[in-house]
Amino acid sequence: MNIPQTSFPRVVIIGGGFAGLAAAKGLEKQELQVVLIDKHNYHTFQPLLYQVATGGLEPDSIAFPLRKRFNDVDNFYFRLAEVSKINADTNEIETSIGNLEYDQLIIATGATTNFFGNKNIEKFAMEMKSIPQALNIRSLVLQNFEEALLTSDLEERKALMNFVIVGGGPTGVELAGALAEMKKGILPKDYPDLDIRLMKINLIQSSGEILKGMSAKASEKAEDFLIKLGVDVWKNLRVLDYDGKTVTTNGEDHFNAETVIWAAGVKGEIVKGLETTCKVSRAARYEVNEFNLLLNHTNIYAIGDVASMTSENAPNGHPMMAQPAMQQGALAAKNILAKLNNNKQKAFVYNNKGTMATVGRNKAVVDLKNFKFQGIFAWFVWMFVHLFSLIGFRNKAIVFLNWVYNYIRFDRETRLIIRPYKKNKASKTTATK
Amino acid sequence: MNIPQTSFPRVVIIGGGFAGLAAAKGLEKQELQVVLIDKHNYHTFQPLLYQVATGGLEPDSIAFPLRKRFNDVDNFYFRLAEVSKINADTNEIETSIGNLEYDQLIIATGATTNFFGNKNIEKFAMEMKSIPQALNIRSLVLQNFEEALLTSDLEERKALMNFVIVGGGPTGVELAGALAEMKKGILPKDYPDLDIRLMKINLIQSSGEILKGMSAKASEKAEDFLIKLGVDVWKNLRVLDYDGKTVTTNGEDHFNAETVIWAAGVKGEIVKGLETTCKVSRAARYEVNEFNLLLNHTNIYAIGDVASMTSENAPNGHPMMAQPAMQQGALAAKNILAKLNNNKQKAFVYNNKGTMATVGRNKAVVDLKNFKFQGIFAWFVWMFVHLFSLIGFRNKAIVFLNWVYNYIRFDRETRLIIRPYKKNKASKTTATK
Repeated sequence: MNIPQTSFPRVVIIGGGFAGLAAAKGLEKQELQVVLIDKHNYHTFQPLLYQVATGGLEPDSIAFPLRKRFNDVDNFYFRLAEVSKINADTNEIETSIGNLEYDQLIIATGATTNFFGNKNIEKFAMEMKSIPQALNIRSLVLQNFEEALLTSDLEERKALMNFVIVGGGPTGVELAGALAEMKKGILPKDYPDLDIRLMKINLIQSSGEILKGMSAKASEKAEDFLIKLGVDVWKNLRVLDYDGKTVTTNGEDHFNAETVIWAAGVKGEIVKGLETTCKVSRAARYEVNEFNLLLNHTNIYAIGDVASMTSENAPNGHPMMAQPAMQQGALAAKNILAKLNNNKQKAFVYNNKGTMATVGRNKAVVDLKNFKFQGIFAWFVWMFVHLFSLIGFRNKAIVFLNWVYNYIRFDRETRLIIRPYKKNKASKTTATK
Repeated sequence: MNIPQTSFPRVVIIGGGFAGLAAAKGLEKQELQVVLIDKHNYHTFQPLLYQVATGGLEPDSIAFPLRKRFNDVDNFYFRLAEVSKINADTNEIETSIGNLEYDQLIIATGATTNFFGNKNIEKFAMEMKSIPQALNIRSLVLQNFEEALLTSDLEERKALMNFVIVGGGPTGVELAGALAEMKKGILPKDYPDLDIRLMKINLIQSSGEILKGMSAKASEKAEDFLIKLGVDVWKNLRVLDYDGKTVTTNGEDHFNAETVIWAAGVKGEIVKGLETTCKVSRAARYEVNEFNLLLNHTNIYAIGDVASMTSENAPNGHPMMAQPAMQQGALAAKNILAKLNNNKQKAFVYNNKGTMATVGRNKAVVDLKNFKFQGIFAWFVWMFVHLFSLIGFRNKAIVFLNWVYNYIRFDRETRLIIRPYKKNKASKTTATK
């Protein structure tokens, strides 16, 4: 890997998401060598992926080059690579560009889509955990509209204009809302020959409420917003299968749809090699102690989505979201420094600053600890928080400019098919990488 | 294709570039049905492709959705398709989505890279005529730097950091300048472990001057600018071959380079079917008369890069640039309207408003009819003209914001590898689509 051996201890961080970046930041300007490894050369601001998928933002403005983030930091190394295995016995990782020894290891690999073992859904449904995947959705939505124009078969046209989003969490809700905004403001203008009433947006949730992690009020109000926007919300309905044409469920309803977006589950992005020493939770997250240390290891931390720290308050671990990831990253950095200085490590306490989701224009729901609110003020809060959280002035400025433009003009101008999505199912795995 | 038959004459335009858009605009709000066909769903502002390729701009801000451009125009139809053949006998075109009859046809298919029959170069060199191709170059440049970090073989590292641009026209000059800016301001910060002196940017021109279409002063000054930026300019040197490793020339020099960008020639993007009736020039452009009508046809026009209208002043036809394309598009629209109203068609007279090229920060050359100037003022003029020419307020605003940011911060923040470029040569044709 061509990383120099120094007298400083080497901390290797796998993953440049919210957790990994927070850890790297906490380790800046210390007597350490830090190596950050990621399979992309940029950090992805995942909360805004749905806007890339629906033509509201350009992908480049929610990505930030990882090298730039740390290019004024000494003893910091970035490597573009995929990690294939961890050898805890030899304190070494195996990657696509060679092996690397570590003194301290931080696993911050994040999460990937959980299809719960259903190979059909994995093959035919779209996922949205990365920028290329979001761009695939953008292309597919537009390609299906182009195709809908051409067919004289009404059933086929309906299927091309039928969108099924499985999973009523924030991703599903925000995507459904954004598609509904496209249905209102943009697609009827772009496709005046199509009967826009044929466009259906279905949001399917297996339980009795959407936005399950939020308050009952937020859940109700979000559903209300979605219905007002014309989304068909299906609760207590479980998707069983999708063969590329028809979504079957455990109810009487089935859906003929050319576009199915699977937002019904995530799981930890586990790395091979620790099977004998570590436990992994049901959602494929490493079980960690209160210091984010892997069970049976003293120098391997797991943080963020890939870590499950269970407690009385969090029987299934902390939510797989940016907030706990950043907090765990920051603390893991501190704990590594404490340990190396023979000080005591500090237990993690999650400071839940609140959760929020946006549904559409002037419509969002926000749950703070002592204050829950919905509507236009919530929407402004949502925008402010997300704008503020983006890395880099340029990204903030461009996202802001897009939002102002989109708001004033009722528009989404990046409805571009830059790389067509190949429906040819055999090549899907290639295309989504 | 599902386009209604009306009593209005149908004008079909193939291609939504500068020429096609100008023609479509000229045919707005007339008693006509206009069908615009393009293989992309957006117009590409080609003059700024090199900034996408070098991380200065996001692709979405130099693209404009074609449907949006005309979505308030009646009797206007856009179809996303590739045209495979023209049947002049039946007044019909064949496309990837079916056949379509026309009353008047405008061929505005533009130009594609001309490899002059060299299959090796076609296979191994990069081209830059479309947004996906520009993104491929962006990815490859960054991937090669990542690889250069890893190798312990000095010759391999040199080849990975060696950039050869073939062709000293505006594209080659602007790309070489932009790479030189990256070498100065960005890559040394991102890759502090690499000896940036190993990075070479070679611009190879077969004739004795770069920017051949411009004044001698502009050519000299541009060369001067490039040399100051650290570009190696090779004149009177002809590239003979490239096997993916080594560029061979008709001189003593050869270049071991992992990145070769071929900007040495373009040719018309001819459509099949008119071989028996039409002549095609050496650069594969349809020979047209003074009304842009194809020889031997009364209802097929060719405009822009794909048309060659020779005259005393233009023995090889007009330059393959935006200006003549837009002017021919506008006139072809007028001439079709004149013809349908039994009025006389007007001969095309090219109004050369001037040519310009930028080399880098504060460095550009501008040739106007009576005024030729170079340097910082030329650079501002270049920026103003290009900003002004972009379609859409959002694109203008975002490009402007990026330019201001890049200028103040000496930065290029979209150095992102969103879709890695597969060097595996077999798959190149797939990746560049």
